[in-house]
Formats: sequence, C-alpha cells, structure tokens
Amino acid sequence: MKKILNTPESYVEDMLSGIYKAHSDMVKPVSEDLRCYQSVRKLPGKVAIVTGGGSGHLPLFLGYVGQGMLDGCAVGGVFQSPSAEEMYEVTKAVDSGAGVLYLFGNYSGDILNFEMAGELAEMDDIKTCIVVGNDDVASAPKGNENVRRGVAGIFFMYKCAGAKADEKADLDQVKAIAEKVGSRVRTMGFALSPCIIPEVGHPNFTVADDEISIGMGIHGEPGIRTEKMLTAKEIAKEALDAILADMPFKSGEQAAVLINGLGSTPLDELYIIYDAVADILKDNKIDVFKVWVGEFATSMEMAGASISVLRLDDEIKALLSKPAYTPFYSNPQL
Amino acid sequence: MKKILNTPESYVEDMLSGIYKAHSDMVKPVSEDLRCYQSVRKLPGKVAIVTGGGSGHLPLFLGYVGQGMLDGCAVGGVFQSPSAEEMYEVTKAVDSGAGVLYLFGNYSGDILNFEMAGELAEMDDIKTCIVVGNDDVASAPKGNENVRRGVAGIFFMYKCAGAKADEKADLDQVKAIAEKVGSRVRTMGFALSPCIIPEVGHPNFTVADDEISIGMGIHGEPGIRTEKMLTAKEIAKEALDAILADMPFKSGEQAAVLINGLGSTPLDELYIIYDAVADILKDNKIDVFKVWVGEFATSMEMAGASISVLRLDDEIKALLSKPAYTPFYSNPQL
Repeated sequence: MKKILNTPESYVEDMLSGIYKAHSDMVKPVSEDLRCYQSVRKLPGKVAIVTGGGSGHLPLFLGYVGQGMLDGCAVGGVFQSPSAEEMYEVTKAVDSGAGVLYLFGNYSGDILNFEMAGELAEMDDIKTCIVVGNDDVASAPKGNENVRRGVAGIFFMYKCAGAKADEKADLDQVKAIAEKVGSRVRTMGFALSPCIIPEVGHPNFTVADDEISIGMGIHGEPGIRTEKMLTAKEIAKEALDAILADMPFKSGEQAAVLINGLGSTPLDELYIIYDAVADILKDNKIDVFKVWVGEFATSMEMAGASISVLRLDDEIKALLSKPAYTPFYSNPQL
Repeated sequence: MKKILNTPESYVEDMLSGIYKAHSDMVKPVSEDLRCYQSVRKLPGKVAIVTGGGSGHLPLFLGYVGQGMLDGCAVGGVFQSPSAEEMYEVTKAVDSGAGVLYLFGNYSGDILNFEMAGELAEMDDIKTCIVVGNDDVASAPKGNENVRRGVAGIFFMYKCAGAKADEKADLDQVKAIAEKVGSRVRTMGFALSPCIIPEVGHPNFTVADDEISIGMGIHGEPGIRTEKMLTAKEIAKEALDAILADMPFKSGEQAAVLINGLGSTPLDELYIIYDAVADILKDNKIDVFKVWVGEFATSMEMAGASISVLRLDDEIKALLSKPAYTPFYSNPQL
C-alpha cells in the first residue's frame, strides 16, 4: 500500500481536519465532532438537506455541503456508514424549523441509521423524510429499481433539491424534486483497477492488467461481467445502450450528462469518453443541455469511470442552472 | 498499459474533440485545427494571454482558457511542445490590438517555439512578450532560478495576469504582474508512481512500491532523491523547509497555498497533506489567505502531489479574488 497519510487509523480524521482548515469560511464541525459536518450558512425557514455515507468517495458526500446544495453531512469511516447518533447531531445543528430531507445513496447501513436518526429527531419535533439515490443500472434489472445502488447520479439530486430548498420550498416540495430527479437519472460504471482501504492495506479485489469490470460498484461490488479491455467508444456504447433501454427518452427531451472519474483516471480519458458519448446521443437525436466532466464520486485511487444521464424537463433545467458554491463544486452565476 | 482510449495515435485529438463538444459555449478551435484552442470571448482592447505546452497535464494548460484568465492555448502531443505555427495561429486569433503575453512553463522546446511565434506575429504588427513559470525549487538551486522548471505554481500567474488583463491594463502591466507573481511562488513535488505516454505504452521510469521520489518533475524528470515512503507530515515538512528557505516570508505577509494532485492521488490524501502544511505555516506565523486543493497540473495517472506557496501582497490578493470562469476552473463572484 502506498498512500500519503500519517497512520491508517487517523486517515479520516486527518482528512477532515485538513478540509476544515482549508474551508473554514464555508464549513465547520458540529460541536467538536469532526465527523458531523455542516455549512456555516443557516437560512431561517429553509428546508435543510442532510446527506451521509462512508469516506473514500470525495467529493462525495460532504463536498456538496454549501450554498445552493446541502446543509450537513454525517461522515463515516472509509466505506462505512456513519452512526445514527452522528446523523442526529447533524440534523439538530442544521434544522431551522422547516424540516430536514435525508438524501443519500441506497445502502442498507445508511438507510437503517438515517431511519433511526429520523426517529430521534422526531422526539425533538424535527420533521424528517428520506429519499435515496439508486441510479446504478448495472446493480439490478429494470423492475428492481428499489435495490439498485446509488452512485454518481446523486449529484443531480443534490443540485436540484438544494436549489429548490433555497427557493424556500417546503419539505414535501423539496422531497418531490429529489424523487423526480432520482427517477430520471441512470448511471453505469466501469472499473479498471481496485483501491485500497487504508486500514486493510491491500485491495479487496483485482482486475487483470488487460481487463475491465463492467458495472462494478464504487466499493468494488461485482458488476455485470469482466472482459478484455474495451475502447472508449465501446465503453460509451455499452453504457448508453443500457441507460437508454432502461430509461427511453421522449422525442425532443434534452439530457444532462455526467462523466465521472473514479479516482486515478485522467481527465484526458474522461473527455475521450465524452467525445464518444456525445456522438451516440446525437445519433439518438438527444440534445445535450449541459455536461459535467470530472471527479464527482470516487473510490480513492480506483481507475475507471461512470457515465450518468439525466432526462430533463424545464423545471430540472432551471434548478440545474441556479448558482451553487461549495468547497468542492461551484456553479457560478454569470 | 490500461487506458480508456480509442487508439494511442488519436489520444490528443479525441480528448480535444470531447472538450470542444462539452464546452462549446466557452471555447472553440481556431479555424479547424483542434490543437489551436481559444476562448469564444474576445474583448476589444484587452491584452490577450496565450499559453501552450504538451498534453497529459489537464487541466494544464488549456483548462485555464476562459473568462478572467487566458485567451488561447497551443496544444502539443503528450509531453511534447506545440509547434511555433500553432502558437502563431492562436496569437492571430486572440489578439485584439493590445498585444499578446505568452505565459508558459520554462521548457526549452516551448521557449524556442514561442520565440519563433513571436517573430511571426511581429511581421503582422502584433506585439508579444514572454514570461515563463519556473516555480519548481527542486529542479535547480537558489541562484539558478532561470533554469528551474515550471509546474503547478503557474496557476497563480495565470489567475493574476488574467485578472489584470481584464482590467484593461496594458501589455507591460500584465507582463509585470505575471513576473511579480512568478517571483513569489515556489513549488515542490513528490511522485509515488509513474505514468504511461499512450504512444509509448510503458512507464519511462519506476518508483518502487515502498519508495517516494522527492522533487520529481511532472514529466518524470529526476528529483532530489528517492527514499523509503514518508508520512504526510514528513512530506509537508520537507516541502515547506525547502520553499521557505528559498523564499523567506517577511513578518505579517500572508500566503496562498496550492495542494496539487498529480493524477491518481485521492483528494483525501491532498487534504491530509494540507492539514500538515497548515500546521507548519502556523508554526512559522504565516497566515493563509486562501488555499486551493485539487488537480491543477497533472501527469495523467501519476501518483503524487505538489505543494505551492505564493507570497502575497495586497495587489496579488485582490487579483486572486477576482471572478474567473473556465470549463475547468471557476472562482465565483459571491
């Protein structure tokens, strides 16, 4: 294992300490628990949005806490769910009376803990509700969407729900937007190499030097199949065939696209993928409204990428276009 | 070699094609040569800033073309200088009568070609001048600054010169700011693993599994020494000892800091480094005005990082704070 760290045991706390020092104008810990992360900004009467999940996926999850997006995040160990108590502490810190939306990926540990946190919050008369991201088409077939994993597509749910909450929409409205965006986004990923959990010290799976694992999850969950390395065009076709079969576009509907690097894949390669994705969407007469290319949901140093497609309507387009400003992502108002 | 591409020969063109498709609202090719890259925005009377260099370093170099930063970029093959003709074509496309600053890294091929491009431009009555970035303290000792390589610290030169040009400063003034920022920034890098040039197909050097190469350049140029892996705190201390000895701070002077990932190093690790850097600067009574953490100058999938420190004054602070908006970097106006 070759990682830049001090000790494997202090990996998460050292990372969080660095983030708070770098961005103290935007984020702070709740009380003194570094794993309870909140925006310094608290708007009276605004629905708060809280996320959470394991570490090792930066900028996911905490990276989207900031203006126009999320209000707080409970931070777990690497690939581990944060505790219900941490989620509850964050909830109390960010609630301004309008209730709290819990918005996170569809993983059983996170669901269990967020449900418990919601029960604790209810005793404090804080209203909460849950929406989970489940955009990974490779993780379960059509009809079984409720067991699909949440991956990079949650970025679109954060962006739109955050913009809606900033308009002072009520909890039901913010929840409805998150659900609508979630129902219209699909992602497919590809892994070329594993990553190493610092406290484990060795990869928990391998991908041979000439192979690609299609549909692998961001914690190394098994994908659809492993085969000989594909070209960028073949990867793009495989992903879009799956996504468009699962979620057909109506004539004239536009798409937003997210090309996400899993960690060690260079930006160069992500743009080579987008070049192929753009051609396929054009062939399908789907106009691209906007594309994001970069690292949005990673697995530390895993090599690979994911392709997300969001089916747009006017409301979603307007929310995507609103300004946002966090330490890890910004959408400037021009 | 395991890279997501179509063919090694089409790596640069496929990447550029993807970038133009993704960001056609902000950038376009000059005529139809993809390697001649310009902003869609052209402001009458503004000094234009052109950069250039080899591919494989995204977001360097072309990523900083956009509002408030650069106007054009000549794009070379992977780790190869672009041609003088390409630089000249970009120059003609972006000049709006106020002259053109060539701002790029201190590499002999780039210097030779930009000098030739300037001579071609002079025949068209386009005034040009050259400023090079040479921030890498590990590449030559104090007193030999003129042969030091340019690495991630050029980001600060781009940001400040771009902001100055946007104020409609004249060519001498924009050049002076670039030189001033360049004289006050120092960088030191560390490599943990090599990268592979697509058309070569294998790494051009190796770093053993338990070793770190201190001071290695972004093309794998030899560093100061290779030794057993260090902790994040040891890395930070080594870098800041070298930087602060080379460029002492006066009492009360603030710093801007850039923690740059070379490609496959996770954001987690970059923040672990910053946590240690912040402590050392505090011990040295140097206040940090602002920090940037992420990938600003990479070597494809190389693992490692660099630490840059900029010695500030009021003028530089004001220019750093101005808004900027490019496909790869933005500084929102709040």
